[in-house]
Amino acid sequence: MAPVLFQARRWLPGTALAWDDGCVSTPDSPEQPPAPAGTVAEASESRIIEILLASYPQAAPAAAETHAHAAGSGVLLGMGDDAALLRFPGGRVLTTVDSLVEGQDFLREWPCGYRTTGRDVGFKSTAQNVSDINAMGGRSVGALVALSLPRDVELAWVQGYAQGVSDAARVLGADGFGIVGGDLSLAGEVTATMTVLGSPGEAVVTRSGAKAGDRIVVAGHHLGRADAALSLLNSTEPQDRVETWGDLERRVAEAMFRPLPPLSVGPEACRVLTSLMDVSDGLLRDASRIAAASGVALRLDPAAIDEEGARLSGWAGRHAGDAVRRVLLGGEDHLLLGTCPPHGPLPDGFRELGTVTDGQGVWLGERSLDAARGFDHFS
Amino acid sequence: MAPVLFQARRWLPGTALAWDDGCVSTPDSPEQPPAPAGTVAEASESRIIEILLASYPQAAPAAAETHAHAAGSGVLLGMGDDAALLRFPGGRVLTTVDSLVEGQDFLREWPCGYRTTGRDVGFKSTAQNVSDINAMGGRSVGALVALSLPRDVELAWVQGYAQGVSDAARVLGADGFGIVGGDLSLAGEVTATMTVLGSPGEAVVTRSGAKAGDRIVVAGHHLGRADAALSLLNSTEPQDRVETWGDLERRVAEAMFRPLPPLSVGPEACRVLTSLMDVSDGLLRDASRIAAASGVALRLDPAAIDEEGARLSGWAGRHAGDAVRRVLLGGEDHLLLGTCPPHGPLPDGFRELGTVTDGQGVWLGERSLDAARGFDHFS
Repeated sequence: MAPVLFQARRWLPGTALAWDDGCVSTPDSPEQPPAPAGTVAEASESRIIEILLASYPQAAPAAAETHAHAAGSGVLLGMGDDAALLRFPGGRVLTTVDSLVEGQDFLREWPCGYRTTGRDVGFKSTAQNVSDINAMGGRSVGALVALSLPRDVELAWVQGYAQGVSDAARVLGADGFGIVGGDLSLAGEVTATMTVLGSPGEAVVTRSGAKAGDRIVVAGHHLGRADAALSLLNSTEPQDRVETWGDLERRVAEAMFRPLPPLSVGPEACRVLTSLMDVSDGLLRDASRIAAASGVALRLDPAAIDEEGARLSGWAGRHAGDAVRRVLLGGEDHLLLGTCPPHGPLPDGFRELGTVTDGQGVWLGERSLDAARGFDHFS
Repeated sequence: MAPVLFQARRWLPGTALAWDDGCVSTPDSPEQPPAPAGTVAEASESRIIEILLASYPQAAPAAAETHAHAAGSGVLLGMGDDAALLRFPGGRVLTTVDSLVEGQDFLREWPCGYRTTGRDVGFKSTAQNVSDINAMGGRSVGALVALSLPRDVELAWVQGYAQGVSDAARVLGADGFGIVGGDLSLAGEVTATMTVLGSPGEAVVTRSGAKAGDRIVVAGHHLGRADAALSLLNSTEPQDRVETWGDLERRVAEAMFRPLPPLSVGPEACRVLTSLMDVSDGLLRDASRIAAASGVALRLDPAAIDEEGARLSGWAGRHAGDAVRRVLLGGEDHLLLGTCPPHGPLPDGFRELGTVTDGQGVWLGERSLDAARGFDHFS
């Protein structure tokens, strides 16, 4: 089945979300509770939790404990106690954590004037974590969220965070995924830390299985979208001001906060792929991780990279400047990067980017690339 | 078996830790790597991760996947991929998250002049989370840590954080517990968010099972210790300056950062208790949660509360002023609070604090207490 993510202008049944070549527009949904007034400083902890719980997605309940062999993972005990209790058939659990920190991963207001919404942060929190579970061939079951909030944050922003988590679960097709616990703190800056627990598929694929002769493959949108978004958001040029944005700019900016990890293809592809990972720090840097973990060289095909660049240019227009550099180095796209045995059809949703050879490092044709040029939070 | 936590002046075999009525002193351990020089700003992300991994506790490996019925939870895949893979026999997982935020949960330098160490934060991160798993009758298996670090934090502080996590695992007896994943961010303030995954015991006990006639029970150190520590740390009196501290002050201050949840008694007690929770927000506030969840009244025995106050006074001297108030309202002690059927012996390590009756709320003898006076991060 072709992943639904790549279909243009498709309305998802039962939602108020419109797709347009990967651009998700999220108009107010009629069934949402009214936006609360006031700031975090004016609300009690229990009021803030109430706002969050009203909009967080609910994880699917697990089969009752008395049916020990019933299929299906899910929640046995959710919020309200010291810990949540989840069921995982087979007793194996995948788990990962990621933080979004104000000032580091996003700005409340960007140089171009765009103000990051709670929905933006909630969607991205969720997408980047479920992408990690997907990259191991698993399905996300539940998550815990630790939110740190400055006193001046609007309660409507907090509600937006929870709605963004729900949007992501629905839009990405994370069926049954929900929030099962959390923690709230006052702080000087917004931090959203999400830990996801997932149920592995039959095969768990790591970064260390690539073999010489394999094909390098990628699934999801074209590379470099989030990097184009970042340069628009960080622009101080008058023509990039948020007040002047048209459809194209809104779509490009949204790529920063609406990553679209291809959840529909991860678990199935793991039956075939020899290595797999989430591309979050840029193609070059992440490819070098597979190369190092597998003890091989990853040789990208210049024509395939040019093709990615051309797709980026077509999508982002003048915001895609230096497109091939964005394709190679841009982070935060949350695609899947993997390697596939040399023969047989590619797994659904994947395209080819090059080949694995003996040696080490990442190459663009015959040119050795320096992985240290990739994205590093601490550089 | 009496919990080892309450034995005075006991040296734990194989460690460099000395116990003195619950005071843990942690001299430099000879097998530790040398303290790194410099600050976060001067190190790469991979260098910081290397420092952390050298001192984090390693989770016990699980039985190989081919032995599907082998007993024992543990790690199948640890760090280095998009997600960790853990095994849980029976397929049930307990999970909880807590953050420690600079400026909210601790100060880099307190009014008395004490500077919070990385070991302090690492120990408390761990203790407060494993206490939540203990309060559900489970055993902690692995944890993920999201650390946000300002650029000016010393690398030695970061190493101390990891050592504090290891100290806690060893001192609290969390056998096999280890760090299986994490995330690092730059930020304006230190935030340590830990998510723990645990294996439930035969019985999972929640807050909602208390019945009229039950006895109210508590396990762990006397109540109010962390509150006494907090008032010493926050003191601006010249006689409380850190430079003047003697053994008593060091012991009292340490109660803030070395909570000692009684892990040895949680799972076993769950075979008997009707409700159980971690006391983190103060006896009154947490008792009111059991009362509300169970639809009963919790009636504390004034003589038992006075006895707790007397123990606190004996331990903290002049820093225990207004001891009964600290016993009722002081947070962050991380004891176990539960209810036990009316007849039969108390579970090992528990003492009686009162009785459950029909009605609602929390009472001190015939006096109704106001739970809103408890500790609330957002009040």
